[in-house]
Amino acid sequence: MSDNSAPARFVSQERLWRRLMEMARIGAIAGGGVNRAALSPEDIEARRLLAFWAGERGYAVAQDDIANLIIRREGRRADAAPVLTGSHMDTQPLGGRFDGIYGVLAGLEALEALDEAGVTTARPVEVVAWTNEEGGRFSPGAMGSMVFTGARRLEEFLDARDAAGERLGDALARTLAALPEAGRRPLNTPVAAYVEAHIEQGPILDSAGLSVGVVSGIQGCRWFDVQVSGESSHAGTTPAWARRDALQEALAAINGLNTLMREADDALRFTVGRLEVQPNTPNSVPAQVTFSVDLRHPERELLERLGDQVERVCRDSMQRCTVQVRETFRQPPCRFDPEVIAVIERAARDLDMPYETMRSGAFHDALFLAGVCPTAMIFAPCERGISHNPAENADPAHLARATQVLAGTVLTLAEEP
Amino acid sequence: MSDNSAPARFVSQERLWRRLMEMARIGAIAGGGVNRAALSPEDIEARRLLAFWAGERGYAVAQDDIANLIIRREGRRADAAPVLTGSHMDTQPLGGRFDGIYGVLAGLEALEALDEAGVTTARPVEVVAWTNEEGGRFSPGAMGSMVFTGARRLEEFLDARDAAGERLGDALARTLAALPEAGRRPLNTPVAAYVEAHIEQGPILDSAGLSVGVVSGIQGCRWFDVQVSGESSHAGTTPAWARRDALQEALAAINGLNTLMREADDALRFTVGRLEVQPNTPNSVPAQVTFSVDLRHPERELLERLGDQVERVCRDSMQRCTVQVRETFRQPPCRFDPEVIAVIERAARDLDMPYETMRSGAFHDALFLAGVCPTAMIFAPCERGISHNPAENADPAHLARATQVLAGTVLTLAEEP
Repeated sequence: MSDNSAPARFVSQERLWRRLMEMARIGAIAGGGVNRAALSPEDIEARRLLAFWAGERGYAVAQDDIANLIIRREGRRADAAPVLTGSHMDTQPLGGRFDGIYGVLAGLEALEALDEAGVTTARPVEVVAWTNEEGGRFSPGAMGSMVFTGARRLEEFLDARDAAGERLGDALARTLAALPEAGRRPLNTPVAAYVEAHIEQGPILDSAGLSVGVVSGIQGCRWFDVQVSGESSHAGTTPAWARRDALQEALAAINGLNTLMREADDALRFTVGRLEVQPNTPNSVPAQVTFSVDLRHPERELLERLGDQVERVCRDSMQRCTVQVRETFRQPPCRFDPEVIAVIERAARDLDMPYETMRSGAFHDALFLAGVCPTAMIFAPCERGISHNPAENADPAHLARATQVLAGTVLTLAEEP
Repeated sequence: MSDNSAPARFVSQERLWRRLMEMARIGAIAGGGVNRAALSPEDIEARRLLAFWAGERGYAVAQDDIANLIIRREGRRADAAPVLTGSHMDTQPLGGRFDGIYGVLAGLEALEALDEAGVTTARPVEVVAWTNEEGGRFSPGAMGSMVFTGARRLEEFLDARDAAGERLGDALARTLAALPEAGRRPLNTPVAAYVEAHIEQGPILDSAGLSVGVVSGIQGCRWFDVQVSGESSHAGTTPAWARRDALQEALAAINGLNTLMREADDALRFTVGRLEVQPNTPNSVPAQVTFSVDLRHPERELLERLGDQVERVCRDSMQRCTVQVRETFRQPPCRFDPEVIAVIERAARDLDMPYETMRSGAFHDALFLAGVCPTAMIFAPCERGISHNPAENADPAHLARATQVLAGTVLTLAEEP
């Protein structure tokens, strides 16, 4: 399939990096980061810049009702379902320069590389910038991909409000109107395949010195809130036998959960990220402690088995306190399409590029696309895995190499029946 | 010594309880509690009421420069140093009806019982209401007893300000002026002996069904702040090997401290009352945790030995994080005067009243009096040991019985050379 690696030669590391840095100026914040909230003036500016670059190449630009922005390179079969690639352009409030935007600009770079390699494809190839993936301004995230795929309806979100009280419907209308040259297209249209490029947001590729991760799925996740209730008393006057110390018993519960989690393999992610104490003064025995449990694993069976034991382990750890365990979120693992995964792996091999096949620890729009079409993802390394942070950084050469793999993948997918 | 138990028959449970309830109306808050900040309008109202009751009996009332309020029952030797009893009238912001005020009204009750028993004493007997024991409005607490005993100088505190910006010196002047009938007396005058009655603020007497605790000292205390520093990272994408989880390592440090503290006896009080996590979100690995250590024991040697190991144990518990341990407060144990303790024990025995000899877990003005004169304390039980809380409660019969012991103690001390 050496034909399909031809566009790789036309992927321009310099052009990709220059565009990333131009985009990073829109919403730039201290420390080298970006704050580009969904449907904000900064988001609109980024959309206009992206549409301008698309227009320079003569690609058609369209928007759907939730302002997902789509750039289209036509194929030989105009009526065929397109191959779709892309990601998002919004960021966390203290976000970085690569999360999301890399996948959009890598997609544009792939289109241009196809042009410059002089290849045509059977299917159209489209680059999408999904609206509001981060959910930092309007909750929840992944709105654009959820509405596009029919997982949720647009009407559910129109009355969502940001912290300043602005209605999503109003910000959406302003965003759509800001790109009058874009055509309008329907939601829920067929997609032949979806491939999303993204920085890893974890340390695995960076540690291994690899440019490419082939993402075979997104691990499942279960969240719990644990509340331990004891009784506050005077730290100086209350002997141990008379205490109902919520912090000591919460600690015993976490010790118990640590032991439970040792049953799992290295793919497990177990985090107690939030812990709060009441009344939280040095000379009062704690009356109440709440803590969060974030549990993730790519295997549904293991995630179910371990998650189902969280409440029992917490209960068994109590001596004089009581505990309430509440599951607040559950997302089963998602396995990406084996054929798309194979196409990505082949594209990497054709370029003699070593890769690691891995699961995504974070959520992405690809989670929702996987419900409607063959889907997979390509990861590029980011420095030390730091993300959702102004210090987020990436190496231009790694980003270009992962884009070469994307270009080859898109070409193959757009030629398949 | 049955003579010295004669006043006990004249201690009036009904009068004592009625006065406690009248005082509880001054600064009453929801839940049956009291908020009577030092030098506030409520404190002034309480002082005026106390002075009124003293005046009804013909006792002289005086104030010193920090507004410690002193009620005097003359003795046969007008020039002899007085026996002093009392406590404080200010409360915590969410305080109860008995903390402090019980010791003041028990002292007044003892004076009246002496009157009604028709006894005279060689030494004068004085009841004191110390200014600002709690330190809730103006920090630090125990100002009145510290300034009276010369442990600190009044001038150090005059420019202290409360949360509303009011200067202590101004509130003090207003308080002093509100009792124009009171004489003025000097600071640092000689005291023959000091006995303070107080609710236990712990559960020991209440659990044992005893009316009286003979307090042989105040345990020592050491406070530490422990700060564990790791690195924040994404809970979904960061494998265990790449984490520097400050909460997990803080937890290991507390586990280590728990093990260390098992070396001590039942008298040890070890509390982690405050713990804070940064950034404290469910899907971020904690970057930093700070927690407090409150360590108390009546034996100086044990307190020193255990406290000196806190930093080492925390350091030994670190794997990939760093830790800083800072001692923020140190108060050596205080042993009360064996002769005053023996007088209290004899007074209890003379009344056939079982008692427990115990240490105080909390600080009291007696800590500073012990530096200048023979001192001890008498505890009365409070319900379930709950204190510094609107739910603070006590049994009228227990309070009266502990006051009987106080009356006998005061009489004996006032007769001794």
